[in-house]
Amino acid sequence: MKDKYKLIMELCRRRGFLWPSFEIYGEVAGFWDYGPLGTSLKNRIIEKWREIYVKREGFYEIDTPTIGVEDVFIASGHVSEFTDPLVRCLNCNSVYRADHLVEIASSDKEVIEREIREKGISCPECGGELSDVYYFNLMFRTTIGPEGERVGYLRPETAQGIFINFLRLFRFNREKLPFGVAQVGKAYRNEISPRQGLIRLREFTQCEVEHFVDPERKNDASFRDLELLLVPRDGRERRMKLSEALSKGFIAHALMAYHMTLIHEFLTSIGIPEEKIRFRQHRTDEMAHYANDCWDAEVLSSRFGWVEVVGLADRGDYDLRAHMNHSKVDLRVDTGEEIGERRKVVKPLMNRLGPVYKEKAKKIAEAMRNIEFREGSIKVEIDGEILEIPEEFYEAEEIKETRKIIPHVIEPSFGVDRIVYVLLEHAYEEETVNDETRVLLRLPPGIAPVDVAVFPLVNDEKLVEIARSIARELSSSGLQVEYDDSGSIGRRYRRQDEIGTPFCITVDFETLEDDSVTLRFRDTMTQERIHRAGLRRRLKELLGRC
Amino acid sequence: MKDKYKLIMELCRRRGFLWPSFEIYGEVAGFWDYGPLGTSLKNRIIEKWREIYVKREGFYEIDTPTIGVEDVFIASGHVSEFTDPLVRCLNCNSVYRADHLVEIASSDKEVIEREIREKGISCPECGGELSDVYYFNLMFRTTIGPEGERVGYLRPETAQGIFINFLRLFRFNREKLPFGVAQVGKAYRNEISPRQGLIRLREFTQCEVEHFVDPERKNDASFRDLELLLVPRDGRERRMKLSEALSKGFIAHALMAYHMTLIHEFLTSIGIPEEKIRFRQHRTDEMAHYANDCWDAEVLSSRFGWVEVVGLADRGDYDLRAHMNHSKVDLRVDTGEEIGERRKVVKPLMNRLGPVYKEKAKKIAEAMRNIEFREGSIKVEIDGEILEIPEEFYEAEEIKETRKIIPHVIEPSFGVDRIVYVLLEHAYEEETVNDETRVLLRLPPGIAPVDVAVFPLVNDEKLVEIARSIARELSSSGLQVEYDDSGSIGRRYRRQDEIGTPFCITVDFETLEDDSVTLRFRDTMTQERIHRAGLRRRLKELLGRC
Repeated sequence: MKDKYKLIMELCRRRGFLWPSFEIYGEVAGFWDYGPLGTSLKNRIIEKWREIYVKREGFYEIDTPTIGVEDVFIASGHVSEFTDPLVRCLNCNSVYRADHLVEIASSDKEVIEREIREKGISCPECGGELSDVYYFNLMFRTTIGPEGERVGYLRPETAQGIFINFLRLFRFNREKLPFGVAQVGKAYRNEISPRQGLIRLREFTQCEVEHFVDPERKNDASFRDLELLLVPRDGRERRMKLSEALSKGFIAHALMAYHMTLIHEFLTSIGIPEEKIRFRQHRTDEMAHYANDCWDAEVLSSRFGWVEVVGLADRGDYDLRAHMNHSKVDLRVDTGEEIGERRKVVKPLMNRLGPVYKEKAKKIAEAMRNIEFREGSIKVEIDGEILEIPEEFYEAEEIKETRKIIPHVIEPSFGVDRIVYVLLEHAYEEETVNDETRVLLRLPPGIAPVDVAVFPLVNDEKLVEIARSIARELSSSGLQVEYDDSGSIGRRYRRQDEIGTPFCITVDFETLEDDSVTLRFRDTMTQERIHRAGLRRRLKELLGRC
Repeated sequence: MKDKYKLIMELCRRRGFLWPSFEIYGEVAGFWDYGPLGTSLKNRIIEKWREIYVKREGFYEIDTPTIGVEDVFIASGHVSEFTDPLVRCLNCNSVYRADHLVEIASSDKEVIEREIREKGISCPECGGELSDVYYFNLMFRTTIGPEGERVGYLRPETAQGIFINFLRLFRFNREKLPFGVAQVGKAYRNEISPRQGLIRLREFTQCEVEHFVDPERKNDASFRDLELLLVPRDGRERRMKLSEALSKGFIAHALMAYHMTLIHEFLTSIGIPEEKIRFRQHRTDEMAHYANDCWDAEVLSSRFGWVEVVGLADRGDYDLRAHMNHSKVDLRVDTGEEIGERRKVVKPLMNRLGPVYKEKAKKIAEAMRNIEFREGSIKVEIDGEILEIPEEFYEAEEIKETRKIIPHVIEPSFGVDRIVYVLLEHAYEEETVNDETRVLLRLPPGIAPVDVAVFPLVNDEKLVEIARSIARELSSSGLQVEYDDSGSIGRRYRRQDEIGTPFCITVDFETLEDDSVTLRFRDTMTQERIHRAGLRRRLKELLGRC
């Protein structure tokens, strides 16, 4: 078989899954359009994600702007940290990722510059001398309003829109932890020289969850004890039950394990083979600036090797603390849990102080507050004068201190475009049938962009009429239906196989007699005869919509 | 009743429909966050739109980047035309919409400046002198790539991503007209001083269709002959059947009428009252630079008067012609229809020419092509020599010329955020029940953000367990469910009324005996007793999902 990437991208262009953006003006790297079939596939993947995260797990979905004001990204660290090291050729002005040029994993200016000097690296294009290393911010920058004084950035992740709403969301959840918040939408990275189709885009779609938890309750989560392929920080791949990985300390806490099971469930439910999924822990030097711990869910691609499709990060309190410091808004949460010992303090009795101390009563009461309770009397200083207040003017009040926390955040972050690509790669198959090559996409029913295709066997007026009316019927019951009457029936089946349509219905001359039609299955090419009246129900069953 | 806008926006903030963006850093005009309930509502409105336009009408949905390269918007006219006239105070530097300041509908520099001079208008803030009028482009600008030389803009409409894909889409539709292409996504306008909540945003969500048609076939469309409230260009409002409006020339063609029926169907299906919808035709001086004809679907708002929520434009061939000229890519379509008279031309017969003319035969055949047919013989010039070719070496061929066109585009463009706002305004009601005010949102089932709420009557362990399991059950069958056990049952009903939840289920002590629960209806507050086993089916019926 030829390079699978090329085969798939050719199929995607030809059949309307993916097109290079701005094609008539010359393509621009890092941008792809989703054609009709690609859009349907992508939307269905996102709907599946919502089914699990929003509908079933009950995470709240919100929708915030893609443009963010500068303060958000100063606080989040993106203005200072979200950069790539570059060098420019002093001769031809070409720009390069400096770390890629020297082939090291560091982005440290001095390390890279030493490497360039020592290895005598020059411009790969013209051999010219290279500039010093400088840092390029990967956020797209713009300005808001007519005077251009307000800087904005296109968000590099949907997450920040959730963090800055934390207080509103906490109230929405009736001031209880834990709770999760989801967001689906575009995010942006002004990559230096994006390549690899959907793998590295400048504009991409994310599905993210920010799961806010009490840092001391990360082990309260329950999870299905799956056996997963893990690559912990030591770099050694092993298949292991999550409970074992937890007890051996590979995985930091149960909430991380819980999210691994959800990620695993989602990826397999859309059709990624179980054995092509692994979880790899980041080395300390590759983690994002906000992460405490990070595991990538990777899918094995025949072209790109293991590809990160989901990042699962324990962001700790990094983000809420950063926004609290920068905005001066208190984002702490009172857990209501007592800490330390209760203290007894003085509670002044105004109704007794008033009649005796008159205009001084209020000041005295103020001064008495929070003083440790003692029997007999207490002394307070009012306008430089020491007063002794007898015990009939106050009583004891017990006060308790409660634990206040900045919640921690566990974040699974899904790169939808990468998921689309690896899914297509695993769905793609070529089979030889009667000496001909049959190309098919083995996408699961409900994920495939078209649910069912309807054909008249031949271009006969009566058959066409019935086929069209079946197509309309199924379509109005919510299925994605394609009608096709051009070319031979065999060719029409092949066309549907190629775009992954799991079921085809053919209306033939028998239909005229007994109202039965042929239902044909993509994967096995087997056919069954079914009465028209039972079609809708049978298809909904097959599509898992009953 | 207080100002409805204030009531709704207060409800929206408090209950998690809408929050001002970047609130902890000070709000920025023109940006709003959708909270959990707002996101659900907005997503459901969009899904309803897709049901009609994508699933039923079969328009192809595509998804293209929000960032566009400069060429796209130079061609489309947005770089030069998509501007607002501004003046700046020479004293305090405040910036104003010049046309608003002089209260005229023109954006002509000279007209406005004359008006400012004649009326002696000065800065409303400080009384300072105003600058000359200058034009501010409403697109957000950014740069792509590390060298900053490639200018990009955030798209002011999703439409351009469709136009520049025209050839791909035409092929996808097997090179036939008409066909429609849909897109749902973010669009951007860097407004001068946005106000009015969701009505004027800097970042907003559009649902657009570009319907490509043969300009001579605009009357082929069939449509339901509705009676609609129309305000044609003459400014006189009247209720009129679409057929009458067409025959009287108020509406230009049947395709426009067809789209009016779809817009009307969509708006009423999500809950906008029929009598609050009208279609108003643009005056010639208010049309966008690309439009031939434009009708706004407007909804009557108690706060803002008639608000445009959908624009329906006949863009003619403006866009495709513009992109064809700018990109030099031929975007014309061959209709296959003959025009003019057929011509008879010479068709050389190679099998006869070959044996006689040998090595010259090919050149002769070339030279004969496209010469008008005549009996006897024809003369051709080969390498400066005139040859007379007898008629046995050729025959007559009839050729026909076909009509080539640049398709026209009819565009319905939906402003989703405005639709959310006007819908909330019409759904909002206050009722007096037992001397108390009951606030409710009369949102249609299926559009309301929560489908059903489930309560235990009191906080009894057994009731709680059953209620939770019912909630889980309904949730896993695809309904949006809320579980609530805090506060009195009356208060819980009110909380659901306020967010528009159409159905509530209460588990009480009778449930323990006979497995029946109470199903309570939002609008009427009536209750019915129903067996738990029939609940899912009954709810799906009520939600129109059967």
